[in-house]
Amino acid sequence: MASIDRLSINQYTLRQWTLPELLQGCSSEDVPWVALWRDKVAETGLKETVKLLEGTGLRVSSLCRGGFFPAAGPEQESSNRAENRRAVDEAAALGTDTLVLVCGGVVGRDLDRSRRMVEEGIADLLPFATATGVKLGIEPLHPMFAADRSVIVSLRQANRIVEAFSHPHLGVVIDVYHVWWDPEVYAEVTRVAGHILGFHVNDWIVPLPDVLNGRGMMGDGVIEIERLRAAVERAGYGGPIEVEIFNEQLWRAPGIDALRLVKERFLRFV
Amino acid sequence: MASIDRLSINQYTLRQWTLPELLQGCSSEDVPWVALWRDKVAETGLKETVKLLEGTGLRVSSLCRGGFFPAAGPEQESSNRAENRRAVDEAAALGTDTLVLVCGGVVGRDLDRSRRMVEEGIADLLPFATATGVKLGIEPLHPMFAADRSVIVSLRQANRIVEAFSHPHLGVVIDVYHVWWDPEVYAEVTRVAGHILGFHVNDWIVPLPDVLNGRGMMGDGVIEIERLRAAVERAGYGGPIEVEIFNEQLWRAPGIDALRLVKERFLRFV
Repeated sequence: MASIDRLSINQYTLRQWTLPELLQGCSSEDVPWVALWRDKVAETGLKETVKLLEGTGLRVSSLCRGGFFPAAGPEQESSNRAENRRAVDEAAALGTDTLVLVCGGVVGRDLDRSRRMVEEGIADLLPFATATGVKLGIEPLHPMFAADRSVIVSLRQANRIVEAFSHPHLGVVIDVYHVWWDPEVYAEVTRVAGHILGFHVNDWIVPLPDVLNGRGMMGDGVIEIERLRAAVERAGYGGPIEVEIFNEQLWRAPGIDALRLVKERFLRFV
Repeated sequence: MASIDRLSINQYTLRQWTLPELLQGCSSEDVPWVALWRDKVAETGLKETVKLLEGTGLRVSSLCRGGFFPAAGPEQESSNRAENRRAVDEAAALGTDTLVLVCGGVVGRDLDRSRRMVEEGIADLLPFATATGVKLGIEPLHPMFAADRSVIVSLRQANRIVEAFSHPHLGVVIDVYHVWWDPEVYAEVTRVAGHILGFHVNDWIVPLPDVLNGRGMMGDGVIEIERLRAAVERAGYGGPIEVEIFNEQLWRAPGIDALRLVKERFLRFV
């Protein structure tokens, strides 16, 4: 990238920072966007977060996360649905139009049923999100998260849902870590043109230090990031690009050093 | 399963045993098949292994592994090709008609080129394997191994290669751990009917203890093993079913206890 105009820092990339520290740090480093997480926002408080944001001029590219639709029973389903409505409301309050959906894992050793529950959950949430002015972005996760985090494991699968609903408030969020391995990924990026709500970058390092918290810094791994970015742009996406790295080593560094490294790598490898 | 007539013990499931111990243990427990690994066979010696097998009456369902086709340069490519010929010869010597291909990871951060090298490598090896009477079984690995072990990450992708060659000595090996998450898996099992050369069982446990060595015992995880087994049978596969579990905890148990647990779970969950 020629500039950091489209750079968004996903909050968990700099987990060592509190939310106020994150906003101050990004502001002082001229980063224009941040992506927030509900748990971190709750720590600071929603109203306080909104106030802090106003002070910095930073914009929120997305809120993470809604979803976790498959439920073990009606009670859990009902509480999930209420929770997802709160997530939509928080996204709106934070001034972002995108709620990222991490769809949830397998319940009852029944993958097909779990996948149907995702579609049912989206059908339930979409009218509420639309009325609130928030878009729902299905983020297919890497298949290694199929059991416990997302039964939606490929862009093709997400696209089928997007096509089935064919609704301006439903799209996909594409994270290179989750999709890079997929032989269909370029075809599916083309297919979902006009419905891409977010793009996340990081890298896949070898050997993988950890399934959850072993994501790499851009340039340290095997992902063809620029090629994927170009494909996403050809498919019409020109919005913020979130750097989302869960990495124990990165979290041990001082936040400001980690942020400067992210900026440098964003310019070199995205 | 109603009996253990089709049970094959993949050697790495009982890594705590030497090859002679494995053959003796399986024989004493009336297990009819074993699946061997080249490194373990080399430790005992090929001729000695053949002799030991003759004494027990055990049959070898497959030899693991050939493959690792993507190469950083011509020298590595040439040595890989020679190594794969040796693997074919060893399979024949051990009396199995199936060499499992673990196709190899990404070289030079170029996924497309790495995938082409897999097809080139198979094209190179197939005439030799055919002349030797050995079949090549492409085993698609879970996408979390795309970087370092197999750029072939789905059954669909393996099937396309099988169809492109359309050769009686080329097929697929299906391992539930690698394919269970795939929304296309049942369609692709049907599609590859007549070309299934092996079927491996184990389970996916939550949370995953380790990418490489955290596979679960059948019944301990989320995989719909019986459903997949039934699909593979409908697609015409009635051969040995290999139990292949890489698991640190299992390896700490006495071999005979681990083997008896495998038998019990095979009867209950496969």
